[in-house]
Amino acid sequence: MARSPKNKGVSPSRQEDFPAWFQAVVREGEVAELAHVRGCMVIRPWGYAIWELMQAELDRQIKKSGASNAYFPLFIPLSYFEEEAEHVEGFAKEMAVVTHHRLEEDPADPGKLKPGGELTEPLIVRPTSETIIGKSFAKWINSYRDLPLMVNQWANVVRWEMRPRVLLRTTEFLWQEGHTAFASEEEARDNTTEMLEVYRRFADEFLAMPVLTGEKPEEERFPGAVMTLSIEAMMQDGKALQAGTSHYLGQSFAEAAEINFLNREGERELVHTASWGVSTRLLGALIMSHSDDVGLRLPPTVAPRQVVIVPIPRGDDGAAVLEAAETLAREIGELSFQGAEVRAMADLRDREPPDKRWEWTRKGVPLVLELGPRDLKEGVVALRRRDAGDAKPESLERSRVATAIPELLAEIQGSYHRAAVERLASRTREDIADLDGFREWFDTDPSDADAGGFVRAPWSEAPESAELLEDLKVTVRCLPFDQDLAPGATCVLTGKPAVTEAIFAKAY
Amino acid sequence: MARSPKNKGVSPSRQEDFPAWFQAVVREGEVAELAHVRGCMVIRPWGYAIWELMQAELDRQIKKSGASNAYFPLFIPLSYFEEEAEHVEGFAKEMAVVTHHRLEEDPADPGKLKPGGELTEPLIVRPTSETIIGKSFAKWINSYRDLPLMVNQWANVVRWEMRPRVLLRTTEFLWQEGHTAFASEEEARDNTTEMLEVYRRFADEFLAMPVLTGEKPEEERFPGAVMTLSIEAMMQDGKALQAGTSHYLGQSFAEAAEINFLNREGERELVHTASWGVSTRLLGALIMSHSDDVGLRLPPTVAPRQVVIVPIPRGDDGAAVLEAAETLAREIGELSFQGAEVRAMADLRDREPPDKRWEWTRKGVPLVLELGPRDLKEGVVALRRRDAGDAKPESLERSRVATAIPELLAEIQGSYHRAAVERLASRTREDIADLDGFREWFDTDPSDADAGGFVRAPWSEAPESAELLEDLKVTVRCLPFDQDLAPGATCVLTGKPAVTEAIFAKAY
Repeated sequence: MARSPKNKGVSPSRQEDFPAWFQAVVREGEVAELAHVRGCMVIRPWGYAIWELMQAELDRQIKKSGASNAYFPLFIPLSYFEEEAEHVEGFAKEMAVVTHHRLEEDPADPGKLKPGGELTEPLIVRPTSETIIGKSFAKWINSYRDLPLMVNQWANVVRWEMRPRVLLRTTEFLWQEGHTAFASEEEARDNTTEMLEVYRRFADEFLAMPVLTGEKPEEERFPGAVMTLSIEAMMQDGKALQAGTSHYLGQSFAEAAEINFLNREGERELVHTASWGVSTRLLGALIMSHSDDVGLRLPPTVAPRQVVIVPIPRGDDGAAVLEAAETLAREIGELSFQGAEVRAMADLRDREPPDKRWEWTRKGVPLVLELGPRDLKEGVVALRRRDAGDAKPESLERSRVATAIPELLAEIQGSYHRAAVERLASRTREDIADLDGFREWFDTDPSDADAGGFVRAPWSEAPESAELLEDLKVTVRCLPFDQDLAPGATCVLTGKPAVTEAIFAKAY
Repeated sequence: MARSPKNKGVSPSRQEDFPAWFQAVVREGEVAELAHVRGCMVIRPWGYAIWELMQAELDRQIKKSGASNAYFPLFIPLSYFEEEAEHVEGFAKEMAVVTHHRLEEDPADPGKLKPGGELTEPLIVRPTSETIIGKSFAKWINSYRDLPLMVNQWANVVRWEMRPRVLLRTTEFLWQEGHTAFASEEEARDNTTEMLEVYRRFADEFLAMPVLTGEKPEEERFPGAVMTLSIEAMMQDGKALQAGTSHYLGQSFAEAAEINFLNREGERELVHTASWGVSTRLLGALIMSHSDDVGLRLPPTVAPRQVVIVPIPRGDDGAAVLEAAETLAREIGELSFQGAEVRAMADLRDREPPDKRWEWTRKGVPLVLELGPRDLKEGVVALRRRDAGDAKPESLERSRVATAIPELLAEIQGSYHRAAVERLASRTREDIADLDGFREWFDTDPSDADAGGFVRAPWSEAPESAELLEDLKVTVRCLPFDQDLAPGATCVLTGKPAVTEAIFAKAY
């Protein structure tokens, strides 16, 4: 019997059209959808459950760093934005503005409503909270004894998007934003670096997504920042995705918000601040890192269900099969993977078994177990590994389930990580020495997922390189921390003397 | 030595001015503050940590009920509100309206910004999400196989407040809103009742706050609902606080959003929907239930720190005392209370020990242990129970710590609960039979925390009772589930034949 199109996985394939494939995986995997308001998204239960697993782990790490969670207002008075000039310039173009606080019946059009109660000062829906949190810090910080002050907020933020893309570029998204204040520059810079390392490790170990770390070039800094660090991941089409940033803000935000403290010598000083964040973009990065032409593939760490059992109740043994599936799910749920109970369930819904199997496959569940009357008799289950492509199911003896499941989950986590590490290594060119080679590497068909990748090369930072890069739609992703610039090296773009090594890539 | 005013606890006392006392407890306990934007609040780290503990427990209960978390857009198109007429009428007056999506330099006033990019359709910042979630449900629900559908969202919502009060009545607040759809009225009503019971148990067992449960009278229903249930708590001033609601919405929202499904007979039917929520108001309720004239008192279940050790390092033994405090904190942190590790810390900050002790006392920590050189020598710690008022510290032998701490925490949880139960019982009058007695009970000085309370009495639901109640600033809180109306009973307000028992109270 031919599989129905619904069961074949997603369409198009990565090779056919990578961006359209991404959208199909997100849709068919029931992760999220753009809906209701242009550029806004609904994060569906399956997608939100992945986000919750990410949040729980990251929240643990953030608290370990010494920060406490708090919550600050959604609305920021317009005047706050006028105070930090550089910051405004960077954000001013893309914010939602609240101008009224009431809806009224429209007398001109009965049954219709119109805005009423105009505000004397418009309110901005936060695009980020440096300005408002700074004002609170100014109130809370009095002496050196109040430092360091480290808070983090899990919140929604809004930046108006003209060309929205689900999960990657949305008008509203969810994120965490950490905001910290210190007595000295050194401590603030250390916090900036430490949090980037938290993000790196989280991406690498939890999301099975290796990343490069480095400093952003000046033009790419957060508006108002002295230094912006980022983690950069490589998607399956060779493009870069900035997956987290950490900023040392110097004293400019402290000056604008008047955050000062009495030092040990009894003198007033400005604090040094930092901020750092990751967002629901990580869901997009996760998907473009690991998924395949069938649909989502989730590392077990972030799979809301790590094991799903699909019973195939045929004939007289139907009830026994259902019961065995439940028992098996309970048994597996008591096993442990990475220090937590395995997330297992038996899918007892009123649907056809193949439909169930395909649903969980498209949703990226690492292990799907099928159990029919014959398996029951033979004391086995049919095991499908999500990392095994179209391979036939393996037969797993019931007696081996307890030892096999945690091992299999670890193997799958490892196999996704290995593939991503290999991709990052094999598609990062370090041997391109001049503009011709650079052009050739990046001058690719944008729908060809197999062409291009990163270039690591010496860079002069010369102004004319900006134009060259723009033509090629390539950006400097970061100046990697592990600099290894050869003496006398010349810029890959201009041939001038290089001052740094840089990572170049097309990017999301 | 006289205590400095800072160390005396909060001012005024509950007796002097209950509402001002509440604000002082919230401020001095570093729970929250109104700041930045009229009616908006900052939830400070200590307050947010309490909220996180509430969230974790409630989230567990919500998931157990079968609902999954998801996230829906912050912005709701104005047109969505025009579709459910009754719903609009209830909410139309108090919403934040986004009309522009850009800030621009103001050419008339250099350095200043003004709204630009007017939207063709204004967007409403969600006051609640029935309309928008309904539209998604309509897309996701096709057949009876897709039912029930149960989602929950933890989110911020905005309802413009003209007379804001921190935690109780704020323009922006945090909440969870559950939205569920069912094939039958019976299931939807069951879900409505089940979730109210989740809230009741949560308030009673987790917050040590007993509540009454019942149905709201018709005028107090959620706009558009068929039935609204609530839990009602009694604050220390005898006033009621609605601490959670659960609504059966019938089919009107389903009709407006066109949420229908193919039933087993192959016919299209409208679903029945329900919604339920609790908010950061619960933080206010918690405080007004348990706190005293010194400051916050937190039931151990919701105390971010259940035990704080304040070292008193004097003379040569200073280092040994600090070390012993850390060791003790670690030891206590390995103990278990209610199935989780005890949240203990040693306060090693560079401050005076009495200041530390008063800070933790004002912040409601259930147990503060003090440890000085002499305690160290004698193998004891000085123990202060937050439920013991101004009593002198007890001396606790180090060898007894492991068994004593969990017991003490259980005792404190019990003592707060007992006091609240006794208050609810002793200040609920069931013996008031006529309007004179009713008037006398409620005609009190609003700043007198000891006067008034609830009245449980027969009610006629007659229209003229509304006016009487308004004069006295009393409301019908609910029609309690455990009805016990005597045959021939007459209305406490009008003397007419009663149709129900009701709970009457002044309320927040």
